[in-house]
Amino acid sequence: MEKSRLERQFDFILEADKEKSILRQTRLSNGVDHENDADHAWHMALMCILLSEYSNKPIDVLRTVSMILIHDIVEIDAGDTYAYDASGVATQRERELKAADRLYHLLPPDQAAKLRGLWDEFEEGKTPEAKFARTLDNVQPAMLNNATDGAEWVNHAVKLSQILNRNKNTAEGSAVLWDYSYQNFIQPNVKKGRIIDDQ
Amino acid sequence: MEKSRLERQFDFILEADKEKSILRQTRLSNGVDHENDADHAWHMALMCILLSEYSNKPIDVLRTVSMILIHDIVEIDAGDTYAYDASGVATQRERELKAADRLYHLLPPDQAAKLRGLWDEFEEGKTPEAKFARTLDNVQPAMLNNATDGAEWVNHAVKLSQILNRNKNTAEGSAVLWDYSYQNFIQPNVKKGRIIDDQ
Repeated sequence: MEKSRLERQFDFILEADKEKSILRQTRLSNGVDHENDADHAWHMALMCILLSEYSNKPIDVLRTVSMILIHDIVEIDAGDTYAYDASGVATQRERELKAADRLYHLLPPDQAAKLRGLWDEFEEGKTPEAKFARTLDNVQPAMLNNATDGAEWVNHAVKLSQILNRNKNTAEGSAVLWDYSYQNFIQPNVKKGRIIDDQ
Repeated sequence: MEKSRLERQFDFILEADKEKSILRQTRLSNGVDHENDADHAWHMALMCILLSEYSNKPIDVLRTVSMILIHDIVEIDAGDTYAYDASGVATQRERELKAADRLYHLLPPDQAAKLRGLWDEFEEGKTPEAKFARTLDNVQPAMLNNATDGAEWVNHAVKLSQILNRNKNTAEGSAVLWDYSYQNFIQPNVKKGRIIDDQ
């Protein structure tokens, strides 16, 4: 018997629970525990609601929050890829596309298309909503790395050039938030030697 | 020197990080780890976006998602109160009011008022948005308890009368979701003896 619309929605919602077990490199502000993907998405969604006034261009906040809430769902199958792990990054796109095909199609077709569209939009990073979401995706871990004395930057011997490359589009979503992040989260850790100054 | 608007916003955003360390009684679908408050809010927000069509009355989805994202922030100071812990429930309101006064006032006044207003609205449970958010707040843990063979219902020797009392307003937000939750998450566990049938 074919599943009902609501059964398919709950199939996806229960499967999404696995996102809470995907750990990121970032540590929580307690300096001990690692953040999981659901924590990260919740934090970004909260930031979006509070900081949307700083988007370079006006954004549809609900659309941006929706994009944020689902942007890491693919990691249920593809795992978290650390931003500064070059070999992981090389295979990331292929792994995530396969994951998107499986996961979003648990949903009824209209919602599968909607969420997949939001994820594609996030990945492409061209709309004001996607640009702002991607800004938050970079500013949020910088805030936590700074709050934990740069522990993960030190652990991975991260260079300033890597951070600047990772953030090359961060100002496109919000010049104000990129400036704040650079001045308050990144630069002080360069001065303290927790980020390697290779510039 | 007085803090800037953006500094106050980041003060709140960083403080909110602590929500990720507040553990709930509910276990994740892996049956091992406990869910934290940020996990729970993220999952509810995702459910709100996917299931708003089942609200008894039309809702403003962004308003409801915003309410959901912040509904447990007070637990940073007040801790999680298990729904079936009578002595905890007795002091819950007082502890949470004190927490709300401290936490929301980290924000600039306009945003403090907005978020505090959303939390008050959630607590009062009178608007369609608050009713729907509260429905999800009950359906989400029932889904996870069912997915983990009723482990937490068994651990706490929960009675059906307690669950029905806890859910006495769940159908007010969505008759469809309450019916689905009762039929698929609650009743099967009564039949299997994981919820004590005292009716």
